[in-house]
Amino acid sequence: MKKINAGIVGGTSLLAGLLIEILYTHPYVDLIYIDSEHHPNEPIYKFHRFLKCDIKNKKFDNYSKEFVHKNLDVIFIAKPHRISMKYVKDLYNEKIKIIDLSGDFRIKNVKEYEKWYNTKHIIPDLIKKSVYGLSEVYTEKIKKANLIANPGCYPTGILLALYPLLKNRIIDSKSIFIVSYSGVSGAGKNPVPGKNLFIDAFNNIIAYKVTAHQHIPEIEEYLSEFAENRVMINFVPHITSVEDGIFNTIFLKPEKSLAEKEFFKFYEECYKNCKFIKINRERIPEIKDVVDTNFCNISLKMDIRTGNLIVFSVIDNRIKGGVGQAVQNMNLMFDLPEDTGLM
Amino acid sequence: MKKINAGIVGGTSLLAGLLIEILYTHPYVDLIYIDSEHHPNEPIYKFHRFLKCDIKNKKFDNYSKEFVHKNLDVIFIAKPHRISMKYVKDLYNEKIKIIDLSGDFRIKNVKEYEKWYNTKHIIPDLIKKSVYGLSEVYTEKIKKANLIANPGCYPTGILLALYPLLKNRIIDSKSIFIVSYSGVSGAGKNPVPGKNLFIDAFNNIIAYKVTAHQHIPEIEEYLSEFAENRVMINFVPHITSVEDGIFNTIFLKPEKSLAEKEFFKFYEECYKNCKFIKINRERIPEIKDVVDTNFCNISLKMDIRTGNLIVFSVIDNRIKGGVGQAVQNMNLMFDLPEDTGLM
Amino acid sequence: MKKINAGIVGGTSLLAGLLIEILYTHPYVDLIYIDSEHHPNEPIYKFHRFLKCDIKNKKFDNYSKEFVHKNLDVIFIAKPHRISMKYVKDLYNEKIKIIDLSGDFRIKNVKEYEKWYNTKHIIPDLIKKSVYGLSEVYTEKIKKANLIANPGCYPTGILLALYPLLKNRIIDSKSIFIVSYSGVSGAGKNPVPGKNLFIDAFNNIIAYKVTAHQHIPEIEEYLSEFAENRVMINFVPHITSVEDGIFNTIFLKPEKSLAEKEFFKFYEECYKNCKFIKINRERIPEIKDVVDTNFCNISLKMDIRTGNLIVFSVIDNRIKGGVGQAVQNMNLMFDLPEDTGLM
Amino acid sequence: MKKINAGIVGGTSLLAGLLIEILYTHPYVDLIYIDSEHHPNEPIYKFHRFLKCDIKNKKFDNYSKEFVHKNLDVIFIAKPHRISMKYVKDLYNEKIKIIDLSGDFRIKNVKEYEKWYNTKHIIPDLIKKSVYGLSEVYTEKIKKANLIANPGCYPTGILLALYPLLKNRIIDSKSIFIVSYSGVSGAGKNPVPGKNLFIDAFNNIIAYKVTAHQHIPEIEEYLSEFAENRVMINFVPHITSVEDGIFNTIFLKPEKSLAEKEFFKFYEECYKNCKFIKINRERIPEIKDVVDTNFCNISLKMDIRTGNLIVFSVIDNRIKGGVGQAVQNMNLMFDLPEDTGLM
Repeated sequence: MKKINAGIVGGTSLLAGLLIEILYTHPYVDLIYIDSEHHPNEPIYKFHRFLKCDIKNKKFDNYSKEFVHKNLDVIFIAKPHRISMKYVKDLYNEKIKIIDLSGDFRIKNVKEYEKWYNTKHIIPDLIKKSVYGLSEVYTEKIKKANLIANPGCYPTGILLALYPLLKNRIIDSKSIFIVSYSGVSGAGKNPVPGKNLFIDAFNNIIAYKVTAHQHIPEIEEYLSEFAENRVMINFVPHITSVEDGIFNTIFLKPEKSLAEKEFFKFYEECYKNCKFIKINRERIPEIKDVVDTNFCNISLKMDIRTGNLIVFSVIDNRIKGGVGQAVQNMNLMFDLPEDTGLM
Repeated sequence: MKKINAGIVGGTSLLAGLLIEILYTHPYVDLIYIDSEHHPNEPIYKFHRFLKCDIKNKKFDNYSKEFVHKNLDVIFIAKPHRISMKYVKDLYNEKIKIIDLSGDFRIKNVKEYEKWYNTKHIIPDLIKKSVYGLSEVYTEKIKKANLIANPGCYPTGILLALYPLLKNRIIDSKSIFIVSYSGVSGAGKNPVPGKNLFIDAFNNIIAYKVTAHQHIPEIEEYLSEFAENRVMINFVPHITSVEDGIFNTIFLKPEKSLAEKEFFKFYEECYKNCKFIKINRERIPEIKDVVDTNFCNISLKMDIRTGNLIVFSVIDNRIKGGVGQAVQNMNLMFDLPEDTGLM
Repeated sequence: MKKINAGIVGGTSLLAGLLIEILYTHPYVDLIYIDSEHHPNEPIYKFHRFLKCDIKNKKFDNYSKEFVHKNLDVIFIAKPHRISMKYVKDLYNEKIKIIDLSGDFRIKNVKEYEKWYNTKHIIPDLIKKSVYGLSEVYTEKIKKANLIANPGCYPTGILLALYPLLKNRIIDSKSIFIVSYSGVSGAGKNPVPGKNLFIDAFNNIIAYKVTAHQHIPEIEEYLSEFAENRVMINFVPHITSVEDGIFNTIFLKPEKSLAEKEFFKFYEECYKNCKFIKINRERIPEIKDVVDTNFCNISLKMDIRTGNLIVFSVIDNRIKGGVGQAVQNMNLMFDLPEDTGLM
Repeated sequence: MKKINAGIVGGTSLLAGLLIEILYTHPYVDLIYIDSEHHPNEPIYKFHRFLKCDIKNKKFDNYSKEFVHKNLDVIFIAKPHRISMKYVKDLYNEKIKIIDLSGDFRIKNVKEYEKWYNTKHIIPDLIKKSVYGLSEVYTEKIKKANLIANPGCYPTGILLALYPLLKNRIIDSKSIFIVSYSGVSGAGKNPVPGKNLFIDAFNNIIAYKVTAHQHIPEIEEYLSEFAENRVMINFVPHITSVEDGIFNTIFLKPEKSLAEKEFFKFYEECYKNCKFIKINRERIPEIKDVVDTNFCNISLKMDIRTGNLIVFSVIDNRIKGGVGQAVQNMNLMFDLPEDTGLM
C-alpha cells in the first residue's frame, strides 16, 4: 500500500510529542512535516526529551501552506484552542484530511463555543462541515470526513461511558453526576501556577474549573444527541499526583429497573465490534489498566440500596483522550483497520 | 494542672504510631502505657520507624486490665474492628474514659452493624452508652461521655460537610452523591493485595468497596439524625497515589433557591466557634491545606446552570479522620481547650 | 520462519508478567507453556492485573518436564534464587535452550556463590556450561549456549558502563565507587517490610544491603574478566519513590590523562554495532529516557578539577535489567535480529 | 523575656514561606516585617497557599531600611544569590543581626565566589566579618556574629557527616566521593525547565550541574578548614521524585584501620551535646526520618572487603539545610536554647 503522507502543525506541544512517537512507528505513515511557529529549524529532541523514536537529526519545519497542500494526505493540528481555527481556516480544502486536536470545532452551537471559550469563532461555516471524532460512535461519518474535531480527554471517557445508556433511553437524562480525576499530564508541559509544578501537584488533590470547564458544553452536546433530548450534567474535574490517565465515576438514575447484568449487556452489545473498548464485568478498571494504550475500559455497579447506577470509565488522557483517538480516526479515514499502529 | 495519665491498647498500628507522637508532645498528658498483644516487650521504634518523639528505650507493655484501671485516666483503643469491642468490654467502667478508634460502637443500630461488619456484636448495651465523637457536632455529649466511638475517616469529612445543610433542611436528603479519594495511608500498614503495595497504588487510581464500604451505615445514621429523617447516600471511595488526606466531592440538590454566599453563611454560622473548621470562600481547598493538621476545610460552588450545589471537604484521614479528633475529644472530656496539643 | 515454541517456569512473578507481555507480541514466538507451582489452573490475569496482551482465558500450567522437553525450543526460568537451580537441574539437556533469570548460575566461583547466597549449589557442573547473558559483551558465546545465566539488574547497567574502560585498561581498577538508585519494582511484588509498601517507599529514599548485596560478586567477577585482573568495587544500592529504572553514578580514576571526548570515543567504538546502547554526548541520561525500553544509555563527565571521571548509566531494571535482555539473548540464540520483538 | 523583633527580606520564596511558619510559632519572636520587592501590599497567602499559620490578613511590606533599622533585632535575607548581597550591603550595621540565606557570604575566598557564582562581589569586606552558620561546628562564633552566612542544603548534610573524621585526621582527605539525592523542593517554586515540573521530575531521576554545582567550593572551603589542609571533593547532585529531603552517600578511605564501632565513637563524642544530630547505630537513616524536622541523622558502614568507609547523612533540605538552621542560629545569637521553636 502507498503510505499516507502525514504532517503536524504545532510540533512542540506535549500531545504533538506523543503523536510523533505513534506516527513514526505506524506502518502505513510517512511523517514528513512537523512545524513549529516559535521554534522553526530547532532540533525536535530539545522539546521532546523522552521520545523513543529516532528524531536525532530532525528539525521543526517552518509553517508552509504550499508544502502541506502539495505533499500531505493528512495534517494534524496540535495548536491551542482559539489558535487552531486559524490554521484550519488557512489549510481547509476538499483534498486534504484535517484532524484538529483543539476544541475549536467540537461544539456545533457557535454561540456556546464563543461563550465557553470566550472568543469569536472565525470560521463558523466549517464547524458544520466538521465531524466529531468519537471513533466508536461516529465511525461512518468519520470515514467520509475532511475535517475531524478530535474529542477532548474528559468528553471521550464520559461519552463512551454514557452512550449505550442514553441511546437506549434507560437512564434519567436529568440526573447525571460526574466526578473525574486526571493525571497531571492533562495540564500540558507549560507551567501553570498552582497546578503542574511538582511541588503543587505531587502528593496533592486539586479540584479546578468547577462549573466552568470548557468540556462541559462538549459533553452535553453529544449526550443530548445520543438522547435526542437536552441533557445537562453535573461535572467536577480534579487533578492528582499521577502522570497520565483519567478516572470517571458517574452516578445515574435508571429509568427502568434492571439487574446489573442487564446493564452490562447493553454495553457489550453496543461495543461488540469495538477493539478499543473493554467492558469489565469482574472488577472496576484502574487507570493502570489503560495507561499507554488507546483503550477505554468501562464497568458498572448497581447500588441496590439506592436504586442508582454507578458507571466507571478509564482512559489514557493523552492517547484515547488525545492523539491515539486521532490516529484511530486517521485509520478510519484511510480505510485501515482502526488499530493499525496503535497496539 | 495535674497531668492526664493516658494509655493505648494496640500500639503497633499505623494510627497508634501517630497517636503516640501527638500524646508525647501534649502538654497535659503523660503517656504511661502502650500495649501490644502480639509484640509485648519489643521496642516501639521497631514498629514506628519514623516517629520523631523520643521512644528509643520504650517497649510495648503486656495488656493489663489491672494497670489500666489502677493508673489511667483515659485509654485509647487502637485495635481493628471486631476485636476492639472485646477490649472495651473488658475495660469499661464508670471511672475510666475510653476512646475507641474502631467502628465497633459507631453504629447505634446493632443489626446494621452486624450486617455491614459481618459479625455478632458482643456488648450491644454499651453501644447505647457510647457517644459518637464528632467533636464539632456532639461537643456537649462528648464532654460527659465515658465511652467515645471515634468517627471513621470518610464519615468525619462527609458529616462535617453536610451537617449545616441537613440541620437547616435546605437540601434534598434523597439526592446526595459523594465521591471520595483517600491517600494510601488509609489502607494501614499491613499489606493489602492490589491496594497498598507501592507497585499497585503509585501512579494509579482505584475504586474499592463500591456500595459495600462499612462507613456507609455510619454516615447515613448521623446524616439521618441531623435531618431527623431517613437519609441514604450514594458513595464511592477511591484510593490514589498520595500519602495522606481525603478529598470529598459532594453533589446536592438545594430545597431552597439560595445564592452561593447564602450557603456559605450557613456554614460560617454553624461552625463559628470551631477552631478546626475552616470555611474557604476564596478557593476550593486542596489536601495539602490540611495534611498533618487536625483541620477540616470546606468550600462550595453553586452550579447556576443545573441548580445543584457542590460541596467540598478535605481532612487528613489519620488526624482529623482519626487520632487528632480522638485527642480533640479527650481535650473536651478533660475540660481542656479543644486544640491543646494539636496545633 | 517456523515459530519458536517458548515457555515460562514460575509464571506468577513480576518479571514473568512482563515476559509474558513481550513474548506474546514477539513475531516469531509461540508462548505455549506458563506454569506456576503454587497456583496451577488459576487464571493468569489474576496475578498480572495490568497486562495489555489478551490472556483472559489462559490459565497457569502444572509444571511438566515431559511437556517442556517434548514441545519447547526455549524455556525461561523465572523462579527465585536458590529455587531456580532445581528446575535447571531437572530440565537441562542438549536439546532445549534454558534462560535462567535468577542468580543461580551467574557466579562462576561456586564458593563465592555459596557465600553470598548462603546456600549450597546443587549442580555446580552446570555453572561452567552456562554462559553469562550480558548480550553486548558475550554475544558470540550466547549464540551457542544451551544455558544462559541472565544478568542481574544492577550488574547489567554497571558492567555495560565499565566494560569499555576496563577492557582498554584506562582506569584504575582499584578505585571504583558506585552509587545506584532503583525504582521500587526492583523489590518485586511480594511485600517486603520497610521497602515496597507504598507508605514506606513513597516520598522516601532508602539505602539497603550496604556491603552485602548479592550483586557485588557478580559485578566483580565480570569486571575482573574484562580487566584480566582482580577488581573490587565499592557499591551502595538505594531504592526511591519511582516505579522502574536504575540510575548508576560511578566515580573512577583514569590511568591515562584523556579529554572527555576521548573517553566518549572508547564507548562509541566499543558499542558501535549495539542497537540497545546509546552513548549520550549532549546530556546525562535520565531514567525516563529508558523506562519501558531495552536500552542502556550511558554518558560521562571528566572532572577537570579532581582529575576523576564520572560515568552514568541508566536502564529499565525490569527490561534491559531483566526480561528484555533475556529475550534479546533468545533472539541471539535463535539467529534473529537482536531487537526482534523489543522495539 | 522581651520578644525578638524579626523580619524577612524577600518574602515570596519557598524558603521564606517555611520561615514565616516557623517564626510565627516561635515563642520568643514577633515577626513584624515581611517584605517583597515585586509584590508589596499583596496578601501573603496568595504566595504561600499551604501555610498553616494564620496570615489571612497579612500583606507584604515595602522594603524599608528605616523600618528595619528602627524596629528589628534580626533580619533574615531570603533573596536569590547575587541579589542578597545588595540588601546585606544596605542593611549591615553593628546593631542588627543579619542572617543571610543566600550563597553570597559563604565562600571566604572572593575569587572562588566570583568564579562559581559568575558575578562580581559588591562588598567583599563583609565576607570576612560574616560567620558561616553551621550551627554545630561554629557555635561560639555564631553567638557573637552580626552577619551569618547560612549554609547551603548540600553543604550542611555533607559537612556534618565529614567534620568528625576530618577534624580527627582519620580519613584520606584526597579521596572523598559524594553522591547526593535531593527532593524537588530544592529547585524552588519558580519553573525550571526540565527539572521541577511534575511531568519532568515525577517518576524520574536526574543528575544535574555535575562538576559545576556552586555548593562545591562551599563544601571544600569548610572541609579544608576542618582538615587544616586543602581538600577537594568528587560530588554529584541528583534530583528525584520526592518532595523534601537530601540523602548523602559518601565513600571514604580511612587513614587508620578502625572497627566500625570506633568510627561511631568519634561521631558520638563530637556531637554529644548537639540536640539536632542523631547518630544511628542500628540502621541507615532514611529521608522520612528527618523530613519536617531540623535533624541531621548520620550513620556509617565499614566495608571490610575494600577497607573503605561509607558514611550516610540525611536532612530536610528546607529546614536543617535552610530555614531551620537559620532559626537555630538566631537562637544561638540571642542566647536561647538552640531548639526553641524548632521541635
